[in-house]
Amino acid sequence: MDALRLSEPAHIIAQVDSVLNSQLTGQAELLGTYSPVAAELVTPLIDFCSGGKRIRALAAWWGYELTGGTSPQIAHIAASVELLHAAALIHDDIIDKSATRRGQPSTHAVFTDLHRRQGLSGSSEEFGASAAIVAGDLCLGLSESLFTTSALDVTQPPVVHAHDALRRDVMFGQYLDIRMQAATFPVKYSASAEVVAGYREIGTFVVDRAMEVLTYKSAKYSVEQPFALGAAIGGAGDAFLRALAAFTLPLGQAFQLKDDELGVFGNPSTTGKPAGDDLRSGKKTVLVGLALQRLAPTEARWLLDHLGAVTTEDDLATMVSLLETSGAHAAHTDLMEAKLSESFAALDELRAFGLDDAAMGTLRAYAERLTRRNT
Amino acid sequence: MDALRLSEPAHIIAQVDSVLNSQLTGQAELLGTYSPVAAELVTPLIDFCSGGKRIRALAAWWGYELTGGTSPQIAHIAASVELLHAAALIHDDIIDKSATRRGQPSTHAVFTDLHRRQGLSGSSEEFGASAAIVAGDLCLGLSESLFTTSALDVTQPPVVHAHDALRRDVMFGQYLDIRMQAATFPVKYSASAEVVAGYREIGTFVVDRAMEVLTYKSAKYSVEQPFALGAAIGGAGDAFLRALAAFTLPLGQAFQLKDDELGVFGNPSTTGKPAGDDLRSGKKTVLVGLALQRLAPTEARWLLDHLGAVTTEDDLATMVSLLETSGAHAAHTDLMEAKLSESFAALDELRAFGLDDAAMGTLRAYAERLTRRNT
Repeated sequence: MDALRLSEPAHIIAQVDSVLNSQLTGQAELLGTYSPVAAELVTPLIDFCSGGKRIRALAAWWGYELTGGTSPQIAHIAASVELLHAAALIHDDIIDKSATRRGQPSTHAVFTDLHRRQGLSGSSEEFGASAAIVAGDLCLGLSESLFTTSALDVTQPPVVHAHDALRRDVMFGQYLDIRMQAATFPVKYSASAEVVAGYREIGTFVVDRAMEVLTYKSAKYSVEQPFALGAAIGGAGDAFLRALAAFTLPLGQAFQLKDDELGVFGNPSTTGKPAGDDLRSGKKTVLVGLALQRLAPTEARWLLDHLGAVTTEDDLATMVSLLETSGAHAAHTDLMEAKLSESFAALDELRAFGLDDAAMGTLRAYAERLTRRNT
Repeated sequence: MDALRLSEPAHIIAQVDSVLNSQLTGQAELLGTYSPVAAELVTPLIDFCSGGKRIRALAAWWGYELTGGTSPQIAHIAASVELLHAAALIHDDIIDKSATRRGQPSTHAVFTDLHRRQGLSGSSEEFGASAAIVAGDLCLGLSESLFTTSALDVTQPPVVHAHDALRRDVMFGQYLDIRMQAATFPVKYSASAEVVAGYREIGTFVVDRAMEVLTYKSAKYSVEQPFALGAAIGGAGDAFLRALAAFTLPLGQAFQLKDDELGVFGNPSTTGKPAGDDLRSGKKTVLVGLALQRLAPTEARWLLDHLGAVTTEDDLATMVSLLETSGAHAAHTDLMEAKLSESFAALDELRAFGLDDAAMGTLRAYAERLTRRNT
């Protein structure tokens, strides 16, 4: 058979941006016929959707091309996946009370600011959260509409199945995350052998649960499922889908592990997030779990007590230092590298499905981009 | 041509409930394979979706049958519309901080309670709102999936158009509502002629804006659009869609006016909502606008100041009494009856499209059920 050709990222992103732009400005025009207030609801979506790495769009597009698909209409599917992601982020930021996203104010912060500037009545924060819930819902609907109007056969059962899995995994992962952040760890503060073992157990619990969260909310949803969706649209068989997942699932896990590392050790000027954001918000990541497994009980207790309750820059520096000196940072890097190696090994196996050097190079560069980054 | 047959409500509701049940239990089973925690996310949806009047399902079903459609697969579309509605209500209740819905705790209240019972960490209320945002998103996704798998031709442009309008109208109406509730009315408190005129103007502003909100959020979304969606799936022409909208739009307006009346004057034991719920929450309804047009400035100012800030049962009784003695309640009833008459007149015109006495009777009974109710 002919070698598969994978489009260049720049080409894909330009096509996806064009579809997104047309979908969102179309919506703005339609709602503009309803009322002048409509612009307030759509403009933040247009701004929000103009940014982002488009890693999910690339995944959906290449998943399709890997099955030999050549229709340019795949741009609708890739753009639909990006709109679903925008909606998920908008709601995620409300839940996490994140003030910024992609280096800009998050959507609820934009609405909070609109409330303040116009001197409206009631709580600006509550208005912001309420409006952003609705903006996210509108965005979800636009994602679905794009999906349906792609002119590709999106009602065939394997496509429905893959699309359902994509939506289900992100929502379930999100709930697991909320649930995990609300977990309690009632270990007493003392230095007895049981307590040391107790913190090790807590650390292992956090590592296991955090891996579960990042697998659903990020690895499956952001990488595995968009590839699988594109492949399903292209008519992929089970053997190929399994081989593809062996590459994409560990890659997605490595991607999120890198993200969590940047959330603590990243440079705010490149990540677009405040320094130590994840520690301030108290996110119980794999990194935190690895530290709890390794710290002495007094330090472990201090870490648990201060996660999400950092009040000074000194506390933040102490926390970052504990993550380094405990060996948690090194162990975290090792884990990420192991996932990445697993992914690269599976990528080599994909050659058997007709991938030539160019296609292998494109996917390898994508994997590098997801994991060797500082943004 | 043969006379059109419209299915009985009991038949439709049984079919829709069966599809809903199978969709939701299927989701629970799938997520159950992910983690034991999954049941927490789906069980509240199953409970929530077992209730409701199903007026949108009936509308979609009959819209389809009015075009001669006979496929039982329309049950998927009708059930999809009900799941969209469940999602909208779940998010609406977070926004309005409503503790109850359909006589049961609202979804965020269920999650708040779960947080308390399990002694989780952090704010129970924030956990409840966060989890309910996610549950609503999951529900939206399930609605879309049902729509796509109906085996009816849902990718044809008129159907996409009608489905887009349904989703857009409810979200836009919701934003208009939030925006309206945050409006400020900075009229000074005195008895000069300008001030009397000022409150009349505020009253007219509230009536106009509240009519706009109820038209999008309720009349179009709950009645006009579900009928239009079913009709589009059945292949309705423009002339029929226009004639149908002439019946359904004023009916939807009368329906919501009745709802607002029950929100103030309804009996909690039949409505499932606490007495005076809308006044306590400060909802600026058409009824409130009609009162502001008619009250003396001191009373109008008192009403504006106490809306959403009722602290005693006496205040609540005073407010209800102002709505009666001002003539606002009577004017509101007149407005509702006028909308209903307009709707019935348009219903008569539908006979020209082949509706026999039986079909006319079914639609008339539906209109009566929406507006002559105490629940």
